[in-house]
Amino acid sequence: MNKKMNLLMFSGEYDKAMAGLILANSAREIEVEVTIFFAFWGLFLVRDPEKTTLEDKSIYEKLMDVMTPKGPEQLPLSRMNFSGLGKWMLEEMIEDQGAPKLIHFLKGARKKNIKFYACKLSVEIMGFKPEELLPEVEIIDAATYLKDALESDLQLFI
Amino acid sequence: MNKKMNLLMFSGEYDKAMAGLILANSAREIEVEVTIFFAFWGLFLVRDPEKTTLEDKSIYEKLMDVMTPKGPEQLPLSRMNFSGLGKWMLEEMIEDQGAPKLIHFLKGARKKNIKFYACKLSVEIMGFKPEELLPEVEIIDAATYLKDALESDLQLFI
Amino acid sequence: MNKKMNLLMFSGEYDKAMAGLILANSAREIEVEVTIFFAFWGLFLVRDPEKTTLEDKSIYEKLMDVMTPKGPEQLPLSRMNFSGLGKWMLEEMIEDQGAPKLIHFLKGARKKNIKFYACKLSVEIMGFKPEELLPEVEIIDAATYLKDALESDLQLFI
Repeated sequence: MNKKMNLLMFSGEYDKAMAGLILANSAREIEVEVTIFFAFWGLFLVRDPEKTTLEDKSIYEKLMDVMTPKGPEQLPLSRMNFSGLGKWMLEEMIEDQGAPKLIHFLKGARKKNIKFYACKLSVEIMGFKPEELLPEVEIIDAATYLKDALESDLQLFI
Repeated sequence: MNKKMNLLMFSGEYDKAMAGLILANSAREIEVEVTIFFAFWGLFLVRDPEKTTLEDKSIYEKLMDVMTPKGPEQLPLSRMNFSGLGKWMLEEMIEDQGAPKLIHFLKGARKKNIKFYACKLSVEIMGFKPEELLPEVEIIDAATYLKDALESDLQLFI
Repeated sequence: MNKKMNLLMFSGEYDKAMAGLILANSAREIEVEVTIFFAFWGLFLVRDPEKTTLEDKSIYEKLMDVMTPKGPEQLPLSRMNFSGLGKWMLEEMIEDQGAPKLIHFLKGARKKNIKFYACKLSVEIMGFKPEELLPEVEIIDAATYLKDALESDLQLFI
């Protein structure tokens, strides 16, 4: 199609992350170019759960690590989470349909030549180190995001 | 204007649904073409409250039916809902202004030649049957949504 | 760049307001034209905390004034707010990085020739008076927003 989609993934919730990644995967299947810019809570989606470190971090940064979800499958729902019960139910319903889980959509996206960017300011404020993110994630500033988004045919804030 | 707007209605909250439907109605009034793609919680907006059925549904699908809002007017607020008190207050404020309620904006939209689409995967996961949705809702996949959105002049994720 | 960005600021949460204003400021730095349309909870961001009045307001409008955040710095987080504890922690982390607070991004935006619009219907329903908003905010209807957004190169619903 020679078209381009740019997603700003702000939310760190399971259902919204699912929506973003389903769109990203579907776009690649119809040969649309895809960029995802992860900011704020959206960074939880591209943290590598096996590379979390508490070294050289302030007390707040350590708390942020300890209190937040480790990896995509731990993200809560944006609604009806009911301390995890609603999310568990949704996961069962996804399985009943033989539909993929969030982690599979993320794995799919990582293989489909999608540009993964992380917001520089968000990474700094949250105290994440570049090596704690998935290796293909490139850290860029808001102006660089804007230039990409302004040239895209479809932009969403999720 | 010969322009086109595409809304992805992900949220199933009263205030966000209101925002989406006000935009859709206003766009039609200035002759902008409108498509709304309802996904996830957004599907609550196009379920026909009189056609809910528990037949042929799994236990989770039944729970989903029982625990979720029946019809647009039952949707909660995204903020300050206070177990419904905040929403009741907002409804009173809307009435004080003589402004239409959500159900009226939905009725208006249904008469204005707006395309209503529902996300196929969301419908399957939530266990809704096509006949439980408003009759004008067409079920499509993410790729079909993308093709429409990529050709639009304004796209929002609500 | 001769490009134009249009933000619909629906949310009245600290983190999302931050995202919107960082994008707005960054866009101006690369000479992109910026319009922000504040609707619903987003109006909390452009209320002048020193001009709140309870005069000539219904009981609901007075409650709305009393129960809602006074000024940008009082806005809650969209996630992990923990009755303000999470937000306090985030503010400390922002300060540790020497990064600006929300109020500074708002002040920056006000000096950068950004168009500030407020949604007429939202202002009426919430019972705000025009003089309670920041002086540069112009009140417009949804159709006027749409015309601006349809001519923009990047539009986000935040």
